[in-house]
Amino acid sequence: MSPEDVVHSFISAIEHQDLDAALALVTESVSYENMPMDPVVGSTAVRAVLEGYLAPVTEVEWKIISQWCVGDTVINERLDRFRIGDGWLELPVAGIFRVEGDRITLWRDYFDMGSYVRQFTEITA
Amino acid sequence: MSPEDVVHSFISAIEHQDLDAALALVTESVSYENMPMDPVVGSTAVRAVLEGYLAPVTEVEWKIISQWCVGDTVINERLDRFRIGDGWLELPVAGIFRVEGDRITLWRDYFDMGSYVRQFTEITA
Repeated sequence: MSPEDVVHSFISAIEHQDLDAALALVTESVSYENMPMDPVVGSTAVRAVLEGYLAPVTEVEWKIISQWCVGDTVINERLDRFRIGDGWLELPVAGIFRVEGDRITLWRDYFDMGSYVRQFTEITA
Repeated sequence: MSPEDVVHSFISAIEHQDLDAALALVTESVSYENMPMDPVVGSTAVRAVLEGYLAPVTEVEWKIISQWCVGDTVINERLDRFRIGDGWLELPVAGIFRVEGDRITLWRDYFDMGSYVRQFTEITA
């Protein structure tokens, strides 16, 4: 698989809320970094964080707005959409993925956490 | 100038707080997008926004953590540092710049606004 194939498969697994499939595409020592928060290191910890994010979610759609691949790095602009109850939470994200072989070693997302929190609060009010 | 040269010169102008030099490197209809806020469109509006950001700032340093250039697009991860009074405000940013000829037509930054606001409040308390 090319780095873009790996990232595409990973995002597809997240959209299907299939964490087994998603975690099969990261290394054991993967670093997952929601900037500027502390890195979440290791696939077990990443699974726990993703389970938390997805717990209230019934549908996931991550629209790729732009994507670039340079060597082993895939960079994308996304609109990450999460259906929670009757509402959709929509989050613009810039993501950087480093891929070694068939697995992601680094996943770093830049986004506005306040926008996530405000929408989550509105939807679940 | 290559797209990377244009972005490098633009960032250097910002670091020198030389808005005339910075604005000479954007098109009249430039779109400046701090996601997920509404775009700031046009060089006059961009100048006003940058003047506001830089007003309390005595030093600016934008460290490039990673940078990629694909065609007319430059993507970077930065640590944008602003000296305000005795403190430094530090903001991790992912930026996307589209360049036409010698000028930037799109400047889109992804970052956590809450981190900016919290640090600004602490520094100026």
